[in-house]
Amino acid sequence: MSAAIKVGVIGLGTVGQGVVRLLKNNADEIARRVGRPLVVTHASVRDAGKARDCDLSGITTLADAMQLAREADVDLLVETVGGISPARELILAALARGKSVVTANKALIAEDGNRVFAAARASGASVAFEAAVAGGIPVIKAVREGLAGNRVERLAGIINGTCNYILTQMQENGTAFDDALRDAQRLGYAEADPTFDIEGMDSAHKLAILASIAFGTPLDYGSVAVEGITRVTPQDIQIAQVFGYRIKLLGIAKRSGKGSEQGIELRVHPTLVPDNTLLAKVDGVLNSVVVRGDAVGEVGFYGRGAGGDATASAVVADLIDLARGLGADARHAVPALAFQPDAVRALPIVPSAEVASAFYLRLKVADEPGVLSKLTAILASHDISVEAILQREPRGHEDANVALITSVIPQHRFDHAVNEMRALPFVREDAARFRVEKFD
Amino acid sequence: MSAAIKVGVIGLGTVGQGVVRLLKNNADEIARRVGRPLVVTHASVRDAGKARDCDLSGITTLADAMQLAREADVDLLVETVGGISPARELILAALARGKSVVTANKALIAEDGNRVFAAARASGASVAFEAAVAGGIPVIKAVREGLAGNRVERLAGIINGTCNYILTQMQENGTAFDDALRDAQRLGYAEADPTFDIEGMDSAHKLAILASIAFGTPLDYGSVAVEGITRVTPQDIQIAQVFGYRIKLLGIAKRSGKGSEQGIELRVHPTLVPDNTLLAKVDGVLNSVVVRGDAVGEVGFYGRGAGGDATASAVVADLIDLARGLGADARHAVPALAFQPDAVRALPIVPSAEVASAFYLRLKVADEPGVLSKLTAILASHDISVEAILQREPRGHEDANVALITSVIPQHRFDHAVNEMRALPFVREDAARFRVEKFD
Ligand SMILES: NC(=O)c1ccc[n+]([C@@H]2O[C@H](COP(=O)([O-])OP(=O)(O)OC[C@H]3O[C@@H](n4cnc5c(N)ncnc54)[C@H](OP(=O)(O)O)[C@@H]3O)[C@@H](O)[C@H]2O)c1
Ligand SMILES: NC(=O)c1ccc[n+]([C@@H]2O[C@H](COP(=O)([O-])OP(=O)(O)OC[C@H]3O[C@@H](n4cnc5c(N)ncnc54)[C@H](OP(=O)(O)O)[C@@H]3O)[C@@H](O)[C@H]2O)c1
Repeated sequence: MSAAIKVGVIGLGTVGQGVVRLLKNNADEIARRVGRPLVVTHASVRDAGKARDCDLSGITTLADAMQLAREADVDLLVETVGGISPARELILAALARGKSVVTANKALIAEDGNRVFAAARASGASVAFEAAVAGGIPVIKAVREGLAGNRVERLAGIINGTCNYILTQMQENGTAFDDALRDAQRLGYAEADPTFDIEGMDSAHKLAILASIAFGTPLDYGSVAVEGITRVTPQDIQIAQVFGYRIKLLGIAKRSGKGSEQGIELRVHPTLVPDNTLLAKVDGVLNSVVVRGDAVGEVGFYGRGAGGDATASAVVADLIDLARGLGADARHAVPALAFQPDAVRALPIVPSAEVASAFYLRLKVADEPGVLSKLTAILASHDISVEAILQREPRGHEDANVALITSVIPQHRFDHAVNEMRALPFVREDAARFRVEKFD
Repeated sequence: MSAAIKVGVIGLGTVGQGVVRLLKNNADEIARRVGRPLVVTHASVRDAGKARDCDLSGITTLADAMQLAREADVDLLVETVGGISPARELILAALARGKSVVTANKALIAEDGNRVFAAARASGASVAFEAAVAGGIPVIKAVREGLAGNRVERLAGIINGTCNYILTQMQENGTAFDDALRDAQRLGYAEADPTFDIEGMDSAHKLAILASIAFGTPLDYGSVAVEGITRVTPQDIQIAQVFGYRIKLLGIAKRSGKGSEQGIELRVHPTLVPDNTLLAKVDGVLNSVVVRGDAVGEVGFYGRGAGGDATASAVVADLIDLARGLGADARHAVPALAFQPDAVRALPIVPSAEVASAFYLRLKVADEPGVLSKLTAILASHDISVEAILQREPRGHEDANVALITSVIPQHRFDHAVNEMRALPFVREDAARFRVEKFD
């Protein structure tokens, strides 16, 4: 067996420590795969005094991460710091030296990946980022390589474990959102500041990455239409269940339109999904992505989307790929975003108002006769049919609720109808509007 | 864009035609991925007169497949003939010329893959075979590359769509096995001679391949313990349901024992799986594989395991991988069986008698008092506890049935207990014995 491949790890938090542990624990098997051992020789952290949950013997710890990126005698670099800066500068410094980098940093890849990949190309190095989407599930490799013969028609995923945990708690125990969130924080599934997760930005980062490798489009995080889960109530979850649906936060990327009209939809929002689909059954912190290709049909993946060990699994898989490619001409490598850089082509993003789907609507109404007939008359006048409708008796001092699911219509048509409904004297509030996706 | 990559396809049946269609339909996207077009320039079939469901314009059709393998001016070769011979000789001939080959041939890879891969190494060429397991699901790539940082602890899969279709029919409609089989044949889901599928050999082929890439062991089809689905009855399916299980034909590969005692279990058999697991919910012709790695935990994959287009998706993905690697030094390639050839190590196969699991047992018994107490006494004397038990009133002229699920025990202990039970005067027949797997 030839000389070891030297790895530097910047950032020894949840994921970085997992990487160090995994490379040590499975050193023998990994060497049997690669033909050479992979050894962490250098690491860098912010606070050198902090205890680490991994064996650091044999690892040179540098106080200055930039020094590691710029000068350390390593073959491959892992960035598990997170955030845009200094992670970006560290990665760019390593790439400038021709060192390939593995990162778990979805924010950076989604928001500034086009620049990072350009820098990698310029120096003949690679940037791998399997861990950035869905943690341990090798979904980037699957879409980029395993399904490469397909024209991807759409993909949909539960790609934020925090939100899925909260929604599952709300579903199973009728917990209110705030309580479920506190519960998730207590268990370490949500950050002290949970905004990024619950407002859907984290899912949007991952969706932007998946969409780019699925459709051969440039990364375009800014175009993702994002709605988080803070407005989901136990009541809506329960009514959805009566209708045969679960409410999940999905990231959805979809081709839409034909020929020269063709564009893509990029959206993250709470979604009613039929309760007999795989996505409806993925509960707790698990993630799942379902991809539809023109040849393969529907393919699904599920597993742990976060956690130090599961995410390290993805980082180490990338390290092994890069280790195999060390010394090879970069033109043999799989392009970072699946398509050759000069063949990446932007497609128009379909504005939310034009995106068609079925819709779930819940209105609070005064408890008086004729409510249903007036509401359904408005829907009919907009050529919207009703797939399911439920009227609930008021409880105590509450208003009565009317909930319904529409046929598939563009959002603007739905919004117009809802605006007309809101003008009706007996309508107190449009309490909830969510998209419904049947995946058929 | 540089010159086209020339592909030869031997065998234009279900899969081969799918490959030709897919490479034509998605020619533009595939070229955008690879940087060069992939074009089928040569093909060979047995019966040149047969109509083909794909556009053969621009393709030179050769009557002699061996001539295509040996002489045609192609860069890559696809073998979609099937069977051991002449498929093996065709592949070996292509490899001898240094041409890399994509095959969908699970029988050949499972039974003689060690030789095929040795020939590939000798000539610096590659053999890719994603299509050999689970059709369009990129599970070989996922296990071999995407989960490469893990020590795989076990995997379990529904890897034969024919059997899963039959069992699903039996489950959903109470259909008898023979009727469900005929139904599958009528729909083209089962061959005229279905032996290979229903007796479990096809699953065993796929399991042998998955186990090898998961554990770094040589291909060892002969060591798989195989039991097909012909003895599954609607009655057992129904009783399993009462117990909270589904009956699925699973291929299971599992590490077993510790330290120097370590071995692997390789087995295909009808299995009771808890009805809340993903595997229990995969119905009809769909396939699914669930892998447990030490770092990633449980990861699952599902999708179409057969059909021309889905299988072609896997073949074309392999072609794209090989196209990228054309001209690169073979030592940069992922080893065919995930581990470096000199690091592949056999592990002892655990004999079936030693393989532990829970068991389902159904006995036909005379309808007389004391039956349960005598049966449970025998189980207790073998230190077997009972997880669930059901006694059914006789219907019409039928015997009464007692069905039960045991605790987890090695098979030899279960067999001894059942043999003692059979000797009891009121036991007419041990009508069914199946393993139960809970995956916890
Ligand atoms: N956690 C997950 O489950 C998960 C899953 C998928 C992807 N990711 C991604 O993985 C990345 C890391 O996440 P994490 O959860 O491991 O974060 P974390 O636990 O907060 O760890 C961050 C690490 O980076 C170090 N660090 C911060 N600034 C640094 C600097 N300037 N120089 C050197 N080290 C610095 C920190 O040092 P100190 O320890 O000294 O403070 C810490 O060790 C993020 O991009 C995240 O989005 C995480
Ligand atoms: N079908 C699936 O869904 C599926 C899924 C996964 C893997 N596979 C595997 O894919 C392979 C092909 O399966 P298939 O279903 O496509 O089989 P198929 O429909 O029976 O096609 C076999 C093809 O090979 C041709 N052929 C037979 N002997 C030949 C010879 N000596 N020289 C040249 N051509 C010859 C046949 O020619 P004629 O047409 O002229 O008879 C036919 O076109 C098998 O290894 C199978 O296990 C199949």
